[in-house]
Amino acid sequence: MENIFTDEYFMRKALQEAQAAFDKGEIPVGAIVVVNDKVIARTHNLTELLHDVTAHAEMQAITSAANFLGGKYLTGCTLYVTLEPCQMCAGALYWSQVSKVVFGAADDQRGYRAMGTKLHPKTQVVNGVMEAECSALVKTFFKQRRG
Amino acid sequence: MENIFTDEYFMRKALQEAQAAFDKGEIPVGAIVVVNDKVIARTHNLTELLHDVTAHAEMQAITSAANFLGGKYLTGCTLYVTLEPCQMCAGALYWSQVSKVVFGAADDQRGYRAMGTKLHPKTQVVNGVMEAECSALVKTFFKQRRG
Repeated sequence: MENIFTDEYFMRKALQEAQAAFDKGEIPVGAIVVVNDKVIARTHNLTELLHDVTAHAEMQAITSAANFLGGKYLTGCTLYVTLEPCQMCAGALYWSQVSKVVFGAADDQRGYRAMGTKLHPKTQVVNGVMEAECSALVKTFFKQRRG
Repeated sequence: MENIFTDEYFMRKALQEAQAAFDKGEIPVGAIVVVNDKVIARTHNLTELLHDVTAHAEMQAITSAANFLGGKYLTGCTLYVTLEPCQMCAGALYWSQVSKVVFGAADDQRGYRAMGTKLHPKTQVVNGVMEAECSALVKTFFKQRRG
């Protein structure tokens, strides 16, 4: 039987979160945390609503998943996020020792790769999953803002 | 008249926060945020208590100060922290556009400088303020843990 729990399957859920952020006027980034094919955290960017630069989707997802698990390490977990993490979020993912990070759209300006941030050596990275959809949402957001 | 509001004056308050973390069995790091010589946030590391890798002193200080100010940018603010910020905290400080960061002890392994994290170009940095005291508290903590 075909495994339905692909990276695309979970990225679609992260995209739903990004859409929720979009609908609130937030930069549209969504994240989820998955362990054993089960979603244990769903979050989206809330920096404007909370007046808080630390309220990126990934930061909330890490806190929420750790709360669910009852421990601070996310070993065995995968974080899906629609946009490449920034320095702050990659730094938090480093501390969390998350097993896998999957992101959609690249962020060539402020993404962790361009900024030189280190993830944990045990963390596997997959990028470009549903890149077109993830990227289109961000581009539409900024186009509307400028328009 | 002599100005009592020196970097040492405020670092001493951050050290009191670090001591509070120490007393709870947390890695002893304390932070405060100051604007116009007024302390608007006081926090200490709570990663163990909250089971949350994002609960570093600086992260809480940024959230707390922004909450006090009613806006997400910390322009005009100085953050004092007893230990050099990590990638995550430096990344958050980058987004906050904080005007000045003052830290006590260096962190040559996990500090933002060794890790290559960028602060905001407008952020002024002062380091080594009460370095001996800030460093001694961390060293005592780890010596007790190993002992």
